[in-house]
Amino acid sequence: MSVNNKAQVGIIMGSKSDLPVMQDAIDVLKALGVEFEVTIVSAHRTPQRMFDYAKNAAFRGLKVIIAGAGGAAHLPGMVASITHLPVVGVPVKSSNSIDGWDSVLSILQMPNGIPVATVALNAAKNAGILAAQILGTHDETISKNIIEFKEELARKVIETAVEVEDTEF
Amino acid sequence: MSVNNKAQVGIIMGSKSDLPVMQDAIDVLKALGVEFEVTIVSAHRTPQRMFDYAKNAAFRGLKVIIAGAGGAAHLPGMVASITHLPVVGVPVKSSNSIDGWDSVLSILQMPNGIPVATVALNAAKNAGILAAQILGTHDETISKNIIEFKEELARKVIETAVEVEDTEF
Amino acid sequence: MSVNNKAQVGIIMGSKSDLPVMQDAIDVLKALGVEFEVTIVSAHRTPQRMFDYAKNAAFRGLKVIIAGAGGAAHLPGMVASITHLPVVGVPVKSSNSIDGWDSVLSILQMPNGIPVATVALNAAKNAGILAAQILGTHDETISKNIIEFKEELARKVIETAVEVEDTEF
Amino acid sequence: MSVNNKAQVGIIMGSKSDLPVMQDAIDVLKALGVEFEVTIVSAHRTPQRMFDYAKNAAFRGLKVIIAGAGGAAHLPGMVASITHLPVVGVPVKSSNSIDGWDSVLSILQMPNGIPVATVALNAAKNAGILAAQILGTHDETISKNIIEFKEELARKVIETAVEVEDTEF
Amino acid sequence: MSVNNKAQVGIIMGSKSDLPVMQDAIDVLKALGVEFEVTIVSAHRTPQRMFDYAKNAAFRGLKVIIAGAGGAAHLPGMVASITHLPVVGVPVKSSNSIDGWDSVLSILQMPNGIPVATVALNAAKNAGILAAQILGTHDETISKNIIEFKEELARKVIETAVEVEDTEF
Amino acid sequence: MSVNNKAQVGIIMGSKSDLPVMQDAIDVLKALGVEFEVTIVSAHRTPQRMFDYAKNAAFRGLKVIIAGAGGAAHLPGMVASITHLPVVGVPVKSSNSIDGWDSVLSILQMPNGIPVATVALNAAKNAGILAAQILGTHDETISKNIIEFKEELARKVIETAVEVEDTEF
Amino acid sequence: MSVNNKAQVGIIMGSKSDLPVMQDAIDVLKALGVEFEVTIVSAHRTPQRMFDYAKNAAFRGLKVIIAGAGGAAHLPGMVASITHLPVVGVPVKSSNSIDGWDSVLSILQMPNGIPVATVALNAAKNAGILAAQILGTHDETISKNIIEFKEELARKVIETAVEVEDTEF
Amino acid sequence: MSVNNKAQVGIIMGSKSDLPVMQDAIDVLKALGVEFEVTIVSAHRTPQRMFDYAKNAAFRGLKVIIAGAGGAAHLPGMVASITHLPVVGVPVKSSNSIDGWDSVLSILQMPNGIPVATVALNAAKNAGILAAQILGTHDETISKNIIEFKEELARKVIETAVEVEDTEF
Repeated sequence: MSVNNKAQVGIIMGSKSDLPVMQDAIDVLKALGVEFEVTIVSAHRTPQRMFDYAKNAAFRGLKVIIAGAGGAAHLPGMVASITHLPVVGVPVKSSNSIDGWDSVLSILQMPNGIPVATVALNAAKNAGILAAQILGTHDETISKNIIEFKEELARKVIETAVEVEDTEF
Repeated sequence: MSVNNKAQVGIIMGSKSDLPVMQDAIDVLKALGVEFEVTIVSAHRTPQRMFDYAKNAAFRGLKVIIAGAGGAAHLPGMVASITHLPVVGVPVKSSNSIDGWDSVLSILQMPNGIPVATVALNAAKNAGILAAQILGTHDETISKNIIEFKEELARKVIETAVEVEDTEF
Repeated sequence: MSVNNKAQVGIIMGSKSDLPVMQDAIDVLKALGVEFEVTIVSAHRTPQRMFDYAKNAAFRGLKVIIAGAGGAAHLPGMVASITHLPVVGVPVKSSNSIDGWDSVLSILQMPNGIPVATVALNAAKNAGILAAQILGTHDETISKNIIEFKEELARKVIETAVEVEDTEF
Repeated sequence: MSVNNKAQVGIIMGSKSDLPVMQDAIDVLKALGVEFEVTIVSAHRTPQRMFDYAKNAAFRGLKVIIAGAGGAAHLPGMVASITHLPVVGVPVKSSNSIDGWDSVLSILQMPNGIPVATVALNAAKNAGILAAQILGTHDETISKNIIEFKEELARKVIETAVEVEDTEF
Repeated sequence: MSVNNKAQVGIIMGSKSDLPVMQDAIDVLKALGVEFEVTIVSAHRTPQRMFDYAKNAAFRGLKVIIAGAGGAAHLPGMVASITHLPVVGVPVKSSNSIDGWDSVLSILQMPNGIPVATVALNAAKNAGILAAQILGTHDETISKNIIEFKEELARKVIETAVEVEDTEF
Repeated sequence: MSVNNKAQVGIIMGSKSDLPVMQDAIDVLKALGVEFEVTIVSAHRTPQRMFDYAKNAAFRGLKVIIAGAGGAAHLPGMVASITHLPVVGVPVKSSNSIDGWDSVLSILQMPNGIPVATVALNAAKNAGILAAQILGTHDETISKNIIEFKEELARKVIETAVEVEDTEF
Repeated sequence: MSVNNKAQVGIIMGSKSDLPVMQDAIDVLKALGVEFEVTIVSAHRTPQRMFDYAKNAAFRGLKVIIAGAGGAAHLPGMVASITHLPVVGVPVKSSNSIDGWDSVLSILQMPNGIPVATVALNAAKNAGILAAQILGTHDETISKNIIEFKEELARKVIETAVEVEDTEF
Repeated sequence: MSVNNKAQVGIIMGSKSDLPVMQDAIDVLKALGVEFEVTIVSAHRTPQRMFDYAKNAAFRGLKVIIAGAGGAAHLPGMVASITHLPVVGVPVKSSNSIDGWDSVLSILQMPNGIPVATVALNAAKNAGILAAQILGTHDETISKNIIEFKEELARKVIETAVEVEDTEF
């Protein structure tokens, strides 16, 4: 089940249509051995639910919140305004978005006092890694998992490099 | 005093630094004979206050809310998510804004279900006129005031036109 | 028939090719119990027709006009210049549009004195809701319909949230 | 006087605040020996005046219309929709413009059927030259003036080139 | 044949891949009864040919040049720098274009002294109409054809309007 | 002294000219009771120094790195590629920047695998708060300081709200 | 094999997914008779490898480096910071790019002191030609090949021009 | 004198008003011991002069051309179309530019076959360094000067780093 008492990371998104993008955060957190939970919280259609979620997050044991949203994406910033936990924002390129600029700027350009740790457009995977890095500042196991994850990234590049170097162009 | 029991329009803004821009809404509503109130409500620094303001607006007798904000401007959209009243959004070009694009897109690009009636960058005057037009759909006096206001706009153009036509270039 | 003597909202668009986008306004107005009419009025190809439509709108009993157009979208702003009624503008992302920026800016950036209540790119549904909200300021039935509509939006989010929370990731 | 019975080019602008930009069109038309007239016509504040101006332009003997406007600049496109004369559009970078993008796109991105000959942001001088070129297609004197004007441009470049080549860097 | 001794309008484009877009100029000029010629002239791959074409255009009897190009589109501006004829520029959205912005800005933003009459992205039809309007300033037949063309545009709008008004939504 | 053995946050920037912007991070970290160090590390002018700094950061006891840079801002992303610590990126609007878009996109749009927690343009204050929030996930004192800091933000809004409400407009 | 002791040009790219774009550089260098090598070097996933590659490039006999990358594209600029050789940067439009703006600006907007010779979005072919031109400044054979290559470009335009001129439109 | 028989680099610009920006190229070439010449060549006002300059450049002994221009900046691309030498383009942010986007895109987005080595907005210094790097591929002295120049850049960063590290914040 996606609601998880041991969850350290809460993954929320404005609409179920964001799930294919946000799935990358889920997958990488599992790979890095981080406990998480997943649900839908809409800033605009369920403002009270958003308020309650953000208000209770720290109390419920969450350490980091990952929030994904598209268009005029208010979810990450509003959650950040209510909780004192670090919030990672994922701009989602939704249909009718103006090329993603709307979600990027709505999440990134937060006023002084209320940061959102913004990642690239649709980069839910990076949101998951960032959440793990935050936990890794005080958790040796997660920290080691991240180091190995990065070594694996490098190994894969080397493999493709060898392949390309062996190609007859 | 700016809090006004007879107010039909509530003018709110994210920060007192938005007041020089929002003053134009105040001035035009006075000119058009519309009762209004003014206060500061920050979506990010006072989320609870924003919730309460939006929740009670209709009950307190307001008919329209004008909300101005800059940067990742969530105030108009969040108020619109909580109240069923029409919300007019004014994108304010704040310092460190990326040329105003952030506030424009954060206010304009609301998801289906929760509109914000967005006006041009810094166009608080137009927000005031729009609020008056909304009330004017059921208030003859305001409606007449708008018609006269528009006639006056035309008269002033004619005056400058005559002036220009009389200029020796 | 789409011309309707009891219509309170006039929905116009620059070209029949805008109808698939503008259909959302039609559908939501029906859902919210608002009487409306629909027609084609092109600012550029039928300027006199546009003039007449805007000039007579209030006299014919309309309270709000929804105007959709793409590219250098002048219809909403020109109608707003002629009538004193509130005009809701829908930027339509037409073919050969520069990613929708042209229609957004042509509708949004109206000069002081002549507001257009602009909604998001292609967001005809929100234009319909906004028109209903404007009428709802003085019509209890419509106002209640909007409140229920918003409650229904929330209910649907909760449903998908439960679904997601029950998913084994 | 700026209204001129012999005028072949009509220069109009949305507001007297556009005059400092549009003055360049006036100056270059005088230099090229083209008869012109100047006045203020606002699409949004005086729509009827704009209709009448555009409707009568050809009848009054004008051959080309230069129209300058800022923000959601509808004047050039609307005039072009009403007259069959060629219309040259000058996007003016007004205050509260979003870096000029709004006026550029509102003038340039006209739909099929109704062209506006758009020049660069604030480039009223080029609008004047273009109007002269249009008349020059059938007027030997104007055509010769343009050729000399271009030769003079070249001469000035050569002069500064010599100056720079003689500089000790 | 596309080279035409009686041609008043020369249609050139940077590459044969621009022809599907530029075909609209051809079609509308035929419809408006304007004599034209068509060829390929690349500013970047055949600079000498471009130079010769522009140098000889007026001498060969052309009155207007329509030039279409994509990307860093230099053809319209370079031709305008060499001839004293009016040049109409068509920004073409080529593959690898950055959403068309490159061709739009490369054509539109000409320096003072050398205008290009720029039309909308891919709007070769409007380039053809504009060329006809330029000729129409001194040709009654073309002028009448344009007036009829615009009346036909209006008629078609009215037809679709009637259709929409008769639809049961 | 800015190099600090107890530092948990390392603040680096590409050039001393970034210091006026980055000072806000320094000030807020002091206010929140977080130990930090400050230095200059240029990705482009001192790549080896950047490598060494990033390589040793975790070993030297740092938990979070804040990196500010302008233009083609590679410092935050390159540091993130070398260390496994969370990196907070501050896009700085330098002279000759294209309105800040270059630094924003160079920092934000990191590829999958290597996140940078990006804050708004010039928002070094938010970078400092975010670093504190990251440490606060495992440090009660810092966590309390953040909660108080946010309460103070709210108090200041209320104060200005009262002021505005008492103003006679 | 792509690693080549006689290579004068090193072609590197951030990911094997960039190869379809970068293939154009390979093909044109072969056509122009320039010796080259190809491999994968990721700034973000293999920073040490990038460092070593750039550090040894001149020593290994390379004269020019072509580096292609997408998104927050740091590879060209970082290689340029480490080597004193000229570096040609190819912005690649990767998936999730914001229309290519991110890679263009991340490569182009390098700070004073560290240039990257940037070519158009996805224009690996031009990167290859530019590398050949650089070598051609001191290699007669390559220089002649470039001259012939450009003559061939012109010939092809003339061919299509003749074809178009013979078309009956 | 700026015309120089031994010149290996030709620096040209569209207008004398570009000289303050282009001076940085002059200064850095002097510092790097590269012989150069400087003059004004306008693509639009002196097209024949541009043709002649580009046509003769290689014959006159130039190895690299640096071309700076603003707005619809055609000079670098047109020179590149005529010569087979490498051309370095400097986008200049002129008055009435649309934030520099026009000159950047007009220079960068060259079609396949005709590259321009584009540097950052106003980055004439980098254009000079790039020209030196190109010559340095076959000139040991220039190559050593570049290496020293880069070492000096690093030294200056270290100096400011020490200064900052010694500051009491």
